[in-house]
Amino acid sequence: MSSAEINKNEVDIVIGALNADLTQFLNSWKPFFSGFHLIIVKDPELKDDLNIPEGFDVDVYSKPDIEKVVGAANSAMFSGYSCRYFGYLVSKKKYIVSIDDDCVPAKDPKGVLVDAVSQHVTNLENPATPLFFNTLYDPYCEGADFVRGYPFSLRSGVPCAASCGLWLNLADLDAPTQALKTEQRNTSYVDAVMTVPLKAMLPISGINIAFNRELVGPALVPALRIAGEGKVRWETLEDVWCGMCLKHISDHLGYGVKTGLPYVWRNERGDAVESLRKKWEGMKLMEKSVPFFEALKLPESAVNVEDCVVELAKAVKEQLGSDDPAFTQAADAMVKWVQLWNSVNSSG
Amino acid sequence: MSSAEINKNEVDIVIGALNADLTQFLNSWKPFFSGFHLIIVKDPELKDDLNIPEGFDVDVYSKPDIEKVVGAANSAMFSGYSCRYFGYLVSKKKYIVSIDDDCVPAKDPKGVLVDAVSQHVTNLENPATPLFFNTLYDPYCEGADFVRGYPFSLRSGVPCAASCGLWLNLADLDAPTQALKTEQRNTSYVDAVMTVPLKAMLPISGINIAFNRELVGPALVPALRIAGEGKVRWETLEDVWCGMCLKHISDHLGYGVKTGLPYVWRNERGDAVESLRKKWEGMKLMEKSVPFFEALKLPESAVNVEDCVVELAKAVKEQLGSDDPAFTQAADAMVKWVQLWNSVNSSG
Repeated sequence: MSSAEINKNEVDIVIGALNADLTQFLNSWKPFFSGFHLIIVKDPELKDDLNIPEGFDVDVYSKPDIEKVVGAANSAMFSGYSCRYFGYLVSKKKYIVSIDDDCVPAKDPKGVLVDAVSQHVTNLENPATPLFFNTLYDPYCEGADFVRGYPFSLRSGVPCAASCGLWLNLADLDAPTQALKTEQRNTSYVDAVMTVPLKAMLPISGINIAFNRELVGPALVPALRIAGEGKVRWETLEDVWCGMCLKHISDHLGYGVKTGLPYVWRNERGDAVESLRKKWEGMKLMEKSVPFFEALKLPESAVNVEDCVVELAKAVKEQLGSDDPAFTQAADAMVKWVQLWNSVNSSG
Repeated sequence: MSSAEINKNEVDIVIGALNADLTQFLNSWKPFFSGFHLIIVKDPELKDDLNIPEGFDVDVYSKPDIEKVVGAANSAMFSGYSCRYFGYLVSKKKYIVSIDDDCVPAKDPKGVLVDAVSQHVTNLENPATPLFFNTLYDPYCEGADFVRGYPFSLRSGVPCAASCGLWLNLADLDAPTQALKTEQRNTSYVDAVMTVPLKAMLPISGINIAFNRELVGPALVPALRIAGEGKVRWETLEDVWCGMCLKHISDHLGYGVKTGLPYVWRNERGDAVESLRKKWEGMKLMEKSVPFFEALKLPESAVNVEDCVVELAKAVKEQLGSDDPAFTQAADAMVKWVQLWNSVNSSG
């Protein structure tokens, strides 16, 4: 699917601004962001004024705008990397594409700049195949197909809820790995999109992601925060947790999640060795989360995304609440998020 | 892992000979088969004498050899593509690599011939990660790692049971697809190995496969045959069924199955349009098989591969036997296979 074939009115590009100067970032993306509507949400903790170059169709939201919509009491939900969730909340579009502001377009092996927006929308518009694994990767790509033995009754697939892109140069590693392997760079461009099978758990990254907001919008929830989490991705867990929720809810409702293309080129930000001094609490929280999600079964009565998030929050509180206060806070944030979603999206 | 690092005494390369003249096939593989022991099993229905070039360490088994080991009554199990299973039965090695005799080495995007044997053994020697999906593909590859959020307790992985390779040029399609898309060629080289997640079903292809015989040997069972199945892969289902069994048993016993690299270059054989005249019974059988495997739960008392195959056969007979006589025959063949395996491998 080329950029020309995409209905640009159906897409919002949401950028969380953790850096004030977005000049280089936006100019690098100009060939691919051009003609799309951008929602830029400024990290409420960022003091400096944003620097946004000319030539973009952009709405900027900063702390006062956030407080106006969600109230001063709730604005803390949107600090740091979580600011982009505010963009998800106020968008009115079918698709959201979201890319961290330290990423620029990657080059494919032929040296051509990758149009991450078109690739994400293509992934979302084509069905997903979570019910049976196709060894030939995305069967809907040109020149590809279903492998021998793939059941014919499953070849129409299911709606695609989310498209998880990948990273060249600096891969998305956790704090200890990043600190121990400061020199490691990802140079492997894997030319494939695939659906993550039903029930498989994965840590979805928020660095380079797109989703169908109409299908699963409220499932992308800013909820889990690590105490002392900084302004570098390897110290965060909000997106990983959100992704575990999103995948589980997509499975429950019969949608698919894809991973693979598009790549973005991820530049360095922050001091990984500095992160080594902090205990990475994410490690402990993930160990508790995995058996929880593995055993989780949402009730059949949960038939829409809002129901699912509320039921998930209930289970988190009951089963994980006593393990760590971060889980209780996450559960409360999830319920609050659904309330906000309903209020913003019904009034709009 | 380079060819030099592999213990060649641990590997048997098993070739099912459906063509009498193996000259071109074997010479094309010489750089990579050299120094390995080959088991060539001649399709018992093939009349002509085999043509095998000099310079290979090879044991050839033909109809009289098969009958001597398994008895004349059982030799029909090993006709057509199923002849390679006889090689699995009589091997004494840890690893089996098996490639169809219409495949030659593929070239990677840099134009370098792919050493499929080394890649398969590398896949088998490194752990698999079926319990959690790593978006960065095989975390044990050089330069790769586990993505942020991947639980640390799962980073040591589980033993790898099988490595499923892929195909350039002619992909592994079923009869109707192959007949309808005679011109379609697979040109997409995806540079990745991944573990297929726990509980995900996939149709494993026998064209280009390797497995750990010590771990799961008896799970590779020649069992399901389509009535009127010919001598072209797109008309067979034996390997797809065998793969469904292998994946389920691997899941049950805590092993992983990988897919991806290595590629082989697959040449054409047979007339796809001719296949259109036949009803592809595989379609119907797969539709019945999928809900069966989805619901299947092997008893906890099945703690080794032989137990699992016998229990699986029992379930097939009970639940699918009345649907199609092919399933009853498959169940009987599975029980017979375990008996043969035990008798050959205990006496040897």
